[in-house]
Amino acid sequence: MSEFTPTERTKVRRLPDRGKYDPESVYGVLDEAFICHVGFVVDGQPYVIPTGFARVNDTLFIHGSAASRMLRTLADGVQVCVTVTLIDGIVMARSGFHSSMNYRSVVILGRAMQVEGRDEKLAALTAFSEQVMPGRWKDLRETTDAELKGTLVLTLPLKEVSAKVRTGPPKDDEADYALPLWAGVVPLKLTASTPIDDPRLPKGIEPPDYARNYKR
Amino acid sequence: MSEFTPTERTKVRRLPDRGKYDPESVYGVLDEAFICHVGFVVDGQPYVIPTGFARVNDTLFIHGSAASRMLRTLADGVQVCVTVTLIDGIVMARSGFHSSMNYRSVVILGRAMQVEGRDEKLAALTAFSEQVMPGRWKDLRETTDAELKGTLVLTLPLKEVSAKVRTGPPKDDEADYALPLWAGVVPLKLTASTPIDDPRLPKGIEPPDYARNYKR
Repeated sequence: MSEFTPTERTKVRRLPDRGKYDPESVYGVLDEAFICHVGFVVDGQPYVIPTGFARVNDTLFIHGSAASRMLRTLADGVQVCVTVTLIDGIVMARSGFHSSMNYRSVVILGRAMQVEGRDEKLAALTAFSEQVMPGRWKDLRETTDAELKGTLVLTLPLKEVSAKVRTGPPKDDEADYALPLWAGVVPLKLTASTPIDDPRLPKGIEPPDYARNYKR
Repeated sequence: MSEFTPTERTKVRRLPDRGKYDPESVYGVLDEAFICHVGFVVDGQPYVIPTGFARVNDTLFIHGSAASRMLRTLADGVQVCVTVTLIDGIVMARSGFHSSMNYRSVVILGRAMQVEGRDEKLAALTAFSEQVMPGRWKDLRETTDAELKGTLVLTLPLKEVSAKVRTGPPKDDEADYALPLWAGVVPLKLTASTPIDDPRLPKGIEPPDYARNYKR
């Protein structure tokens, strides 16, 4: 895989060391996440809406109800920005100024297109499910034609893309390292706990392994 | 506290039951989070950038380097959308169609203004620190005038605001409840693990309680 080419719009200017343009970095963030924030403009006002997504090769899919205002706006091929963020820790420096976060984020610019074919839509729906809960799709009741028709699937090429990453300990002012103050990182991770049965679950059905041992 | 008034732009249309306009719901989400996604428009292109924030009463603060392109754009009073999202769980229904997420999100529309006074800026910096790591600010080396000057602080009124919340078990098609398939919710939470000492930490300094027992 070749590097993404930073454009005037995706090049990381502030703290350029944090900019990453290799597919491993970009895809690594996308594959660990399952929620993105979609930005679009209506009458000059930007809107930022959280939604699920799936990555398949060099394409990002988002989806939702065919009645969704956001989805219908995006399907018109307007300019869009999709941002995916993972928070890895709180960087506790000796000063407020150098206090920070460890994070990995990806920004994707482009225009979305509607996915039309039945097979292509089903493949995208499979990918959404697998992105969130790998192993689940094969167990689900089959998707009906009415459900497919009621779902709008959009595709965005992973072309104008950059990642921004901060890792590691605080970077304090040299004089501050001598202070008698703890500094370091508090690691953070989105963590699953014990699955909660649907109150209407028939007796005797246990959660499958993919739910009991869920990890991002 | 009185309800926020939903506008044409913030009223939740899709699944209107999920819309919340009371300050308790809105502030509850904002106070549990510390990262927002800021949307703004440059030359017709929307950008969505993750950054830290603090809520103080009916105001949201964001901040960054005075050299940041985003901050300088926003300081000009352009239209902005700030979105805060908490993911609470994966809703595992019996069909792909009804599979979902439990989440709480807040969308804020408006125009940001620059915070100018020295005391006001310091108060905002204190609030950023306390939003992420309550108890830390009092231990930090004092902020210098140069640092204050190098930091741009913006304020956004919490006025045109709505929250959207999904909680609870899957809502499946009636016929699907009889399927011999586990369904329920896998709870998710951003969780801290053991603090990592800065490699340059002087010997014998232990992490403070606020870092060791960190919880959102």
